[in-house]
Amino acid sequence: MADINSHIEIGVTTGPIRGSRKVYVESPRNPDVKVAMREIELEPTSGEPPVKVYDTSGPYSDPNAQIDINKGLPQLRRDWIMGRGDVEEYDAREVKPEDNGQLGPDRSGGVPGYPNVVKRPLRAKAGHNVSQMHYARKGIITPEMEYVAVRENLGREMAREAASGGESWGASIPGLITPEFVRDEVARGRAIIPNNINHPETEPMAIGRNFLVKINANIGNSAVASDVASEVDKMVWATRWGADTVMDLSTGRNIHDTREWIIRNSSVPIGTVPIYQALEKVGGVAEDLTWEIFRDTLIEQAEQGVDYFTIHAGVRLPYVPMAAKRVTGIVSRGGSIMAKWCLAHHKESFLYEHFDDITEIMKAYDIAYSLGDGLRPGSIADANDEAQFAELYTLGELTHRAWKEDVQVMIEGPGHVPMHKIKENMEKQLSVCGEAPFYTLGPLVTDIAPGYDHITSGIGAAQIGWYGTAMLCYVTPKEHLGLPDRDDVKVGVVTYKLAAHAADLAKGHPASQVRDDALSKARFEFRWRDQFNLSLDPETAEEYHDQTLPAEGAKTAHFCSMCGPKFCSMQISQEVRDFAAKQNQSPEGFLASEKLGADTAEASRLAAEEGMREMAQVYKEKGERLYLPEEESS
Amino acid sequence: MADINSHIEIGVTTGPIRGSRKVYVESPRNPDVKVAMREIELEPTSGEPPVKVYDTSGPYSDPNAQIDINKGLPQLRRDWIMGRGDVEEYDAREVKPEDNGQLGPDRSGGVPGYPNVVKRPLRAKAGHNVSQMHYARKGIITPEMEYVAVRENLGREMAREAASGGESWGASIPGLITPEFVRDEVARGRAIIPNNINHPETEPMAIGRNFLVKINANIGNSAVASDVASEVDKMVWATRWGADTVMDLSTGRNIHDTREWIIRNSSVPIGTVPIYQALEKVGGVAEDLTWEIFRDTLIEQAEQGVDYFTIHAGVRLPYVPMAAKRVTGIVSRGGSIMAKWCLAHHKESFLYEHFDDITEIMKAYDIAYSLGDGLRPGSIADANDEAQFAELYTLGELTHRAWKEDVQVMIEGPGHVPMHKIKENMEKQLSVCGEAPFYTLGPLVTDIAPGYDHITSGIGAAQIGWYGTAMLCYVTPKEHLGLPDRDDVKVGVVTYKLAAHAADLAKGHPASQVRDDALSKARFEFRWRDQFNLSLDPETAEEYHDQTLPAEGAKTAHFCSMCGPKFCSMQISQEVRDFAAKQNQSPEGFLASEKLGADTAEASRLAAEEGMREMAQVYKEKGERLYLPEEESS
Repeated sequence: MADINSHIEIGVTTGPIRGSRKVYVESPRNPDVKVAMREIELEPTSGEPPVKVYDTSGPYSDPNAQIDINKGLPQLRRDWIMGRGDVEEYDAREVKPEDNGQLGPDRSGGVPGYPNVVKRPLRAKAGHNVSQMHYARKGIITPEMEYVAVRENLGREMAREAASGGESWGASIPGLITPEFVRDEVARGRAIIPNNINHPETEPMAIGRNFLVKINANIGNSAVASDVASEVDKMVWATRWGADTVMDLSTGRNIHDTREWIIRNSSVPIGTVPIYQALEKVGGVAEDLTWEIFRDTLIEQAEQGVDYFTIHAGVRLPYVPMAAKRVTGIVSRGGSIMAKWCLAHHKESFLYEHFDDITEIMKAYDIAYSLGDGLRPGSIADANDEAQFAELYTLGELTHRAWKEDVQVMIEGPGHVPMHKIKENMEKQLSVCGEAPFYTLGPLVTDIAPGYDHITSGIGAAQIGWYGTAMLCYVTPKEHLGLPDRDDVKVGVVTYKLAAHAADLAKGHPASQVRDDALSKARFEFRWRDQFNLSLDPETAEEYHDQTLPAEGAKTAHFCSMCGPKFCSMQISQEVRDFAAKQNQSPEGFLASEKLGADTAEASRLAAEEGMREMAQVYKEKGERLYLPEEESS
Repeated sequence: MADINSHIEIGVTTGPIRGSRKVYVESPRNPDVKVAMREIELEPTSGEPPVKVYDTSGPYSDPNAQIDINKGLPQLRRDWIMGRGDVEEYDAREVKPEDNGQLGPDRSGGVPGYPNVVKRPLRAKAGHNVSQMHYARKGIITPEMEYVAVRENLGREMAREAASGGESWGASIPGLITPEFVRDEVARGRAIIPNNINHPETEPMAIGRNFLVKINANIGNSAVASDVASEVDKMVWATRWGADTVMDLSTGRNIHDTREWIIRNSSVPIGTVPIYQALEKVGGVAEDLTWEIFRDTLIEQAEQGVDYFTIHAGVRLPYVPMAAKRVTGIVSRGGSIMAKWCLAHHKESFLYEHFDDITEIMKAYDIAYSLGDGLRPGSIADANDEAQFAELYTLGELTHRAWKEDVQVMIEGPGHVPMHKIKENMEKQLSVCGEAPFYTLGPLVTDIAPGYDHITSGIGAAQIGWYGTAMLCYVTPKEHLGLPDRDDVKVGVVTYKLAAHAADLAKGHPASQVRDDALSKARFEFRWRDQFNLSLDPETAEEYHDQTLPAEGAKTAHFCSMCGPKFCSMQISQEVRDFAAKQNQSPEGFLASEKLGADTAEASRLAAEEGMREMAQVYKEKGERLYLPEEESS
């Protein structure tokens, strides 16, 4: 798909998502804030209004947008950033050959430089702090916060009365999100808005337990396979299906340039693990890493516009031996790099030692910390062990140090955890890290299903999302086995989207059930097209339907392939409804049968209890005689 | 695959499951009881013994077995059944044209009669009860119970000390399963062993909350598509991947013959919903159903050897109007048939009225009840509503009525339920139905992901399995959309297998973690083949691996495609381990750093707490000044 010319023709995926159109909802308080959403029109027979859904797909799904990845996306936030008067342009650090990993062999497939690199990036003026947290703590509501409020509110006004209950485990999800609420959540560190001032192309979004549960998709070229052209489209593709943020985990050659292409064309926040690139710069030899090389890499990526950095500053020297007894040791790549460095030098981690220096950089660009869990468990056997929680305590300490400087923080979490140990992870994280957003990988609830780890982890993700995790890092079917292709990325994203949505439902998010109800009504009324369009993946839904009933007429048919045309339970339900409606016309009709039903159920319940009592009595009286001793029975 | 000749050549799937061999473990107390398992040999470098795994694949995966589906499987239990001296042979009911649905149009694709139909089936002698529950309550330990004990014990002796804790929510899972324990669980109704005396081909298995969580796969020809040949292989295919029982939900023509083919070739219990066939006999007109036709259908299927019947006796007339207000009405096919009958006649359900008559049939053949949830919710909106629980109370009443006659019972459950409402389902079921095994369909935790409903339901299934559900009915990716094909069946089965296993882990099943640990160790040591072979689906695991690194050498390579050969976190972990081992040799070494790690972590935790306190103080003191009033800030 790519060639080596400077004007790359990558076939990024564009056009509306099936059955929906792009709309822009204006903030009632700030006409500059126009929030992108998708609207799904329903069939006229439904008599229902269109359903608005949260949209992460950016301009790519807007047929009116002009997409040219050589020019990048429009700079939505540029005026907001400049308008605050606290930033300055300066000459960018010069790109060095080693930034593109030229030291090693070329495994990138080749990628040209981005044609319109910003030579004068932004940073905070001396003595200033440009983080959203800093503004929030000053009581300022930024346009970014306004954007988030409108975006998160989607459907709430309509759904407010119909709040579905739910169990939020101590979260405080309001009926309606005000910009003030967004500000307050950011101010107290319970939510972050990751938005580097050098990535003005982003559509602002919030990560926090009182907002919709978000998902992240990882992309990245690999040292073994993959090329940059497909990586850029992977980002577009992942956000098309719902990725709220994307992490670029590229290694090897041309990673600087690859990242530039991705950031300039991304409307979602981009995260990275800077130690990966730093390691490339020292030829892959962990012990050769230095603070200076790492610091230089942070500046390099800060100027490009990376929105959050995974920093494994919790892997401290004294914790490293704790991993020795584990079944799977250290499985985090960043964690093992730092462990090796600590062991080789027998010194405390330079990330921990220089944490406050890193914080100074973060606040000059508004980059959020994603404090990495380098000692996360890589197997069920290692879950919730000493090493994992020792690191978590240090992440808690660092959270508070970052917060003192008004720098935004989220905390990365595991990993592989059996279901009964998931809640402890959430509770400890909330308590030690002061409710800073938790950002977990899965967790995978069993180790025995490679090839299906999007599912083993989706189970854990739904659960920990319900308990309070703010963002779920996706896992694809290829986890542990190979590199995800386009289909794997889509399956991973959709799986995590449904897990996040299940968590929102269970937390009692006031608007989350709107889409379930609309889809279920469509299903009941055999509005097949509405059912497809309302689903997370309309294309797959339609394709599966067509495999059994390909005829076009089947899409309006009042039956489905499960029961066939002859007998249909949905149809009978309609008859029940008609019957009830008829009964309802006479006063003694419908209501009387309702009452009768409740009475009958109560009688059954009492009979069941009576049965239990009788049974218990029988056992009590005759138990000894009924059960023959073992030797007689065998 | 099939032709119309009486000797059908169906290509059923045979041969060992990749990387494992069939073994037969003899009961220490009864040499007639030889329990089929699979053994996975590990690479010599592992220094570990082979891993035994639970096996549902029957003789098909044994290369020494002679498979001829025209002859059916060996009658493993025949002698045990005859040996009890309480059964008699009698002339079978004559097969009528309407048994094969000859009233309707032929949509079956054509299927011949089974060549060796048993003309003289078994039933209990007058005055006898041949249910496993009846024997258990008399204190008898049957060979079936011995079989179950050996089968369930798998790996426990090895794992006993390493019991992993877990949260079992009140279940009582013993360290070792004795035949006495099996008997006691069956006697008190907390487990069932579904085994019709006319299905002697079964390998006995137990369904109960103190045993391994089981899964069921539904198969069945449909009125619209599908043919019988593929249905028989679907059963073989589903059990190959782990289905513990199979429900034959066929409708339309030739269903009697199709069922015969399936039962004679099935080593797992077969369940049906007899009302489906009864409905065929009255040409699909629900209101024409009668108790006589239904009773005759029960006898017909009892003689063939169906092991459990779904009976929707809880759909009582007064409950039907309760479904009228629902978003998706009645979605159970059996439930809607009965609702329609009740409405049309304005009479109480004949299933409820004749419940004790049905029980008389059940005990003459040892068929277990699967009390159907005809009013289960079909959408998130309808979960845990009045209709659903009214029916559940009646199922509780019927459970105790069946138990009075020593007939085995399990209870079917929903459906579509958001995560926070799942636990209530389990708790109510346990309490009202006296801990009779719960058998749930999913539940699906959101409605918005058609095409991915194996996952939306797998999430709910893992959770409800953890809470105490004994068997999980699978859902395939085609749910709500179309009929599952071979690949869908496999994906559904593996998804449910992993959900059931995750539940076992979370409940603290003493042996469940053995396989996770073995696989994780293989992963850590880059024993790729062991990793594939130990997984639930070795073929897919290997295929995914090969997509990225197809070379044969990559299967023994000490790296993977994620990080490539240059840098590998697993390798570094090994260095950490070596380092720790070295430290360990000097007294002040390893142990000192362990202690140091704990101290450091504690210091971090205290610092984090201090940070919290400071922060709280700042807010308390300056909060009013820090937050500008709204009018000033915007």
